[in-house]
Amino acid sequence: MNHIPSLTDILATHEKIKPYIIHTPVLSSEKINELAGCEVFFKCENLQKIGAFKARGGMNAVLSLSPEEQQKGITTHSSGNHAQAIALAAKAVHTKAYIVMPRNAPEIKKSGVKYLNGEIIECEPTLEARETTVQQVIDRTGATFIHPFNNYDVIAGQATAAVELINEVNTLQVIMAPVGGGGLLSGTALATHYLLPDAEVIAGEPEGAADAILSFKSGKIEKAPYIKTIADGLLTNLGDKTFEIIRAYVKDIITVSEEEIVAAMKLVWEQLKIVIEPSSAVPFAALLKQKERFAGKQVGIILTGGNVDLGSLPF
Amino acid sequence: MNHIPSLTDILATHEKIKPYIIHTPVLSSEKINELAGCEVFFKCENLQKIGAFKARGGMNAVLSLSPEEQQKGITTHSSGNHAQAIALAAKAVHTKAYIVMPRNAPEIKKSGVKYLNGEIIECEPTLEARETTVQQVIDRTGATFIHPFNNYDVIAGQATAAVELINEVNTLQVIMAPVGGGGLLSGTALATHYLLPDAEVIAGEPEGAADAILSFKSGKIEKAPYIKTIADGLLTNLGDKTFEIIRAYVKDIITVSEEEIVAAMKLVWEQLKIVIEPSSAVPFAALLKQKERFAGKQVGIILTGGNVDLGSLPF
Repeated sequence: MNHIPSLTDILATHEKIKPYIIHTPVLSSEKINELAGCEVFFKCENLQKIGAFKARGGMNAVLSLSPEEQQKGITTHSSGNHAQAIALAAKAVHTKAYIVMPRNAPEIKKSGVKYLNGEIIECEPTLEARETTVQQVIDRTGATFIHPFNNYDVIAGQATAAVELINEVNTLQVIMAPVGGGGLLSGTALATHYLLPDAEVIAGEPEGAADAILSFKSGKIEKAPYIKTIADGLLTNLGDKTFEIIRAYVKDIITVSEEEIVAAMKLVWEQLKIVIEPSSAVPFAALLKQKERFAGKQVGIILTGGNVDLGSLPF
Repeated sequence: MNHIPSLTDILATHEKIKPYIIHTPVLSSEKINELAGCEVFFKCENLQKIGAFKARGGMNAVLSLSPEEQQKGITTHSSGNHAQAIALAAKAVHTKAYIVMPRNAPEIKKSGVKYLNGEIIECEPTLEARETTVQQVIDRTGATFIHPFNNYDVIAGQATAAVELINEVNTLQVIMAPVGGGGLLSGTALATHYLLPDAEVIAGEPEGAADAILSFKSGKIEKAPYIKTIADGLLTNLGDKTFEIIRAYVKDIITVSEEEIVAAMKLVWEQLKIVIEPSSAVPFAALLKQKERFAGKQVGIILTGGNVDLGSLPF
């Protein structure tokens, strides 16, 4: 779609992708509530297909193409969860996914794409090489490029996680998500604005990739002063489409340190008995950092994914 | 109750404990199905309160006492999940839990009981010391002793996990559970016998605690030839009550090696993105070991718990 998704768009998106995604559970823990001083409801997108919420946006973007476009295939460049989301969606509509990945991408990410029948095209590990290689794929195949976040169909897809969360707990006073490129955060902010207009949307961001908070304050898209964080899903800058929505509907962004991310991650593993990746733990870390702000409230947190290498855990 | 639980007993138990337990989700993974050669539905009791199915049996046993009995308190000896289950249940009915634990029980288990307001009474790490100490508690307080598995109220409680699983997937052809003392296995076997009489119940047991398979073959309760397994929830022998039910309604027991347990555990963490303890992985390891037997079938597996020390993982 070529406009900010309306409530009708988001609900129609939800119906459209439902057969292809998992309606993930919402979990909570009395011990976590006690530690946090508020009631926390975790929407478990780590239990989503491909282990991340990205399945929602990728699926919607691919299902929104015409049959002719679908037939020519889909392409993207990504070394992360979006690559698998596009491969999954392409497989679902029986077409090809051409995934441009940097030569040095982890083997586990490559094998995830291959498992979903995605074709990997390797390139040098620079943004320029990625974009040039994607353009070559488009020129050769006519495939459609799907941006990982700066795309309204993707944003509408990511919004459906918050739709399910709000349907399940319609008394939430705060909804939290991490911010990287802003696809999930902008979708979450839209869904919340439409369905729970009195609730605040607050984002968590790593101090070591603090571009969104700078942009939020200055009013224009900024880069992070430095990049150094374990939350490898949150390294990207905002896009113009996601930023516009975030400026309008997000209340605040809270940054957290590496230690705070790892501590929050460990607490979720121990108490909820689920595997989450570091990026997922960022909003919960933000909540724990500013407890007084959330005291006694009902807070929903979107846990974004669970793709971690069990061989190199930070605890 | 003083008889093998009937279907009516089990369904009434389910209604009784519902307000106190979590209706845990059933998860599956296309990749696991492909690897296993069958459709596997995992009932996630690791996401249960106290991180284990034991919350069900403990809750039912305590709720089944008279108000007078409840008031005098509850006691048990356990260094594992049953201790926390009893503390949780006692707290729910606003009475005291006296938990006898060996002096050398892990600090994390002790703190779990303390967190639930359970009173810990330490003893020497022998079965004799445990039983003597429990008797002293009873003499002093009038508390009721609740056995971890050889108790029909406990068995009826554990049966409710299979009830929920069958309600959600009523086409299962096989249901699997691990076997330690046999509380969960006997409850699962009863529920399956009543609700899905054509389905087979098959247990998994560690080779390093292989008492149940010996008992199953000889027809009398046997001890394991040796005890050495990472599946620390499955060390106990069967009781007369659990054994009678298991003999009648369990189709088979499959033993698995330590390597098979760890590999199955890792696969669940990686693909389902959940934290399970080694004991939980035993039936899935049994399935993977005898794939041909389950080929093309719909198999339910009860994942029993998720209480592991993240600091000492076997992978």
